[in-house]
Amino acid sequence: MSEHDNGPGPCISFVTLGVADLARSRAFYAGIGLREHARSDEHVAFYDLGGQVLALFPRSALAEDAGVEPAPAASGLGFSLSRNVRDESDVQRLLDRAERAGGTITRAASPPPWGGVRGYFADPDGFAWEVAWNPAMDLDAEGRIRFGT
Amino acid sequence: MSEHDNGPGPCISFVTLGVADLARSRAFYAGIGLREHARSDEHVAFYDLGGQVLALFPRSALAEDAGVEPAPAASGLGFSLSRNVRDESDVQRLLDRAERAGGTITRAASPPPWGGVRGYFADPDGFAWEVAWNPAMDLDAEGRIRFGT
Repeated sequence: MSEHDNGPGPCISFVTLGVADLARSRAFYAGIGLREHARSDEHVAFYDLGGQVLALFPRSALAEDAGVEPAPAASGLGFSLSRNVRDESDVQRLLDRAERAGGTITRAASPPPWGGVRGYFADPDGFAWEVAWNPAMDLDAEGRIRFGT
Repeated sequence: MSEHDNGPGPCISFVTLGVADLARSRAFYAGIGLREHARSDEHVAFYDLGGQVLALFPRSALAEDAGVEPAPAASGLGFSLSRNVRDESDVQRLLDRAERAGGTITRAASPPPWGGVRGYFADPDGFAWEVAWNPAMDLDAEGRIRFGT
């Protein structure tokens, strides 16, 4: 197997959230400052994150494409997406923005056992986003996360 | 708000999967060719994807950290992670490897309505991974996805 298969190297091209109400989710993600890519249409919203795409797609359509049953609404946390930030003060600022956009703060900015400061918000479907400032991790010039030394 | 807030730019630093059995999941992801980062320990597994980290963390611990209830096991599809590949033949090859590692093929390699070829496998917790060859998308030298022109 080639190095490309075994990583390290990018292997998540898309993160696709299966949403209950595409219009509602679009409004929320616009509210937290994400701009849709022009390739978006009435069926799907794409956000170019610089080498990775966040997509919003109706949950039933996504499940049908994957050949499985959709999760029921409000089925609890199965995973999380984290955004690491450069400055400790960014944590509260981004949580505040998410709340103004209609998100629910599920964990206020506070120190986790492993250091730094983090908080969580839930998007309109309950998808969990962590906003984290962690001095043990580095962000490169392009905003990509790197394990610190 | 700065350009950094509004993107496009990386904003998913970690994708953390809340797993039922950390040892089982570690074995599966090793089986599909991912190598753990040295920062991993008995509580969490990290995979450096080149500017993004995939993490495996017990679901109950992740939910507790986020301040919400964990999803029940086998609660259906809520989201998917996609790996786009350079060559059409990679789709079948990576699906085969996932199946050998104990994954479940939920959608065999086949053409979706939007072009190209894709298939899906489920990891031991049922997390949906798409393997996609899509000629309308580009992969740069580092394997990062770019919208084609």
